[in-house]
Amino acid sequence: MISAFPMSSSISSDLSRPIGVFDSGIGGLTVVAELRRALPSERILYVGDTARVPYGGKSPETVTRYAREISDLLVSERAKLIVVACNTASALALPSLAPDFAVPMIGVLEPGAAAAVKATRSGRIGVIGTRATIGSDAYGKAIRRISQDLKVSAVACPLLVPLIEEGLFEDEVTATLLRRYLAPMLDEGIDTLVLGCTHYPLLKKTIARICGNAVTLVDSAENCALAVKDLLATLPPTPPDPGLDILLTDSSEGFLRIAEKSLKLTIDSLEVRRLGS
Amino acid sequence: MISAFPMSSSISSDLSRPIGVFDSGIGGLTVVAELRRALPSERILYVGDTARVPYGGKSPETVTRYAREISDLLVSERAKLIVVACNTASALALPSLAPDFAVPMIGVLEPGAAAAVKATRSGRIGVIGTRATIGSDAYGKAIRRISQDLKVSAVACPLLVPLIEEGLFEDEVTATLLRRYLAPMLDEGIDTLVLGCTHYPLLKKTIARICGNAVTLVDSAENCALAVKDLLATLPPTPPDPGLDILLTDSSEGFLRIAEKSLKLTIDSLEVRRLGS
Repeated sequence: MISAFPMSSSISSDLSRPIGVFDSGIGGLTVVAELRRALPSERILYVGDTARVPYGGKSPETVTRYAREISDLLVSERAKLIVVACNTASALALPSLAPDFAVPMIGVLEPGAAAAVKATRSGRIGVIGTRATIGSDAYGKAIRRISQDLKVSAVACPLLVPLIEEGLFEDEVTATLLRRYLAPMLDEGIDTLVLGCTHYPLLKKTIARICGNAVTLVDSAENCALAVKDLLATLPPTPPDPGLDILLTDSSEGFLRIAEKSLKLTIDSLEVRRLGS
Repeated sequence: MISAFPMSSSISSDLSRPIGVFDSGIGGLTVVAELRRALPSERILYVGDTARVPYGGKSPETVTRYAREISDLLVSERAKLIVVACNTASALALPSLAPDFAVPMIGVLEPGAAAAVKATRSGRIGVIGTRATIGSDAYGKAIRRISQDLKVSAVACPLLVPLIEEGLFEDEVTATLLRRYLAPMLDEGIDTLVLGCTHYPLLKKTIARICGNAVTLVDSAENCALAVKDLLATLPPTPPDPGLDILLTDSSEGFLRIAEKSLKLTIDSLEVRRLGS
């Protein structure tokens, strides 16, 4: 264990219980930023699996194994609910994991799908995500469960996560790749685009510029935070204990930079802890 | 265990012993291609750690842990020597691992450094690699151990591995990033460039076009294969048993495509096997 920040012996106080949040890397921080806005008096414990990032090209079995290890860790840290702040894990792992845990688990996928259905007027919805998320057709299925009349086009954007992890938010290369990824869906006349990866809100400005005003962007991070707020209202209350504790599975140079500079998050403690073998 | 190909119960025959080779993903296949050319009657067992790819942004502790697990696996499969076909693992893990294993271990770094020293006339050598490799200054140290008069410039190219894993070898985006990464070193007047990542030989054409004829490219894969040939000549001979067996730690779509189409490798067996937790 390597501590970059002074760390109390127990992450949460005896009475308070944190909201557990996890992602493969920094992407889930966009969900954390929205949670802080929606629920300012909650303590959040965030796990970023930086030792095994990225998840987006990995198999359902492997992503499920990683998600289960992290969920076990969050439960052992007394999380009162678990937010799967990663579209790949929400699509591939959440359905099989949720029944095995005593605390409620919530993903980013269903809230995003519901918001997209609400936003579209033309009935043509685009979805972008990792290869694993798009390959699972999880958004298509979730959208069609709400309404069968909608047309969903989905495109895998496997290079966006590495570009974002490098901080190239406003870069010629990122814009070139985005135009290439988005062109077929824009040609098909989508009026709503789901940012189906929690990393993507960091590219919102560039995506909005390419899509133009006629396309509504659905931010899965924002919609997930609202769903967490609703869910929390149904659970027994815990004392206010605002804060953000971070556990990473490997040290990461870019993590703090993006957390503090791009997302303006204040971190109370940061610990690197080995997970699995 | 998921078998994509029919697999014999034991990977190697009773008498033969394979050359064990590993990398985080597909990069080490460039070393395998060179080994097949240099040593056509040898059996090669290749492990690609596709469940945890890429290594290049991870810490020395994490990369060493992963490299140790794979080396243990290769020894249990009776490898007669282990080739660390990954510059990141060669730089970060090999020095501390080699003393712990009874079979010889050889990396890509020292052979590449020696070839660069031999190639340069101006005394100015450039090195490109992952953030971890460049951060370790392993090439600079290896080159200065041979000659202290040489000037080494090194640039981390963290986006090249994801682009290569996506197969974008000849793409506008790859060329734009390469020009950006290489410009400072070309301005400094290097006459030799070490491709300090086993993925990079797949970009050799584009890199050569950007560098021009005045710069010699040093391919660490090629030089590593020659060093393996020399080392093998010092070991007890084993019967000829040509072949290539592949173990991946997670299923990978791009792996077979690049192995067979880009590198013209014939694979005898492919198995996906879970490693660690």
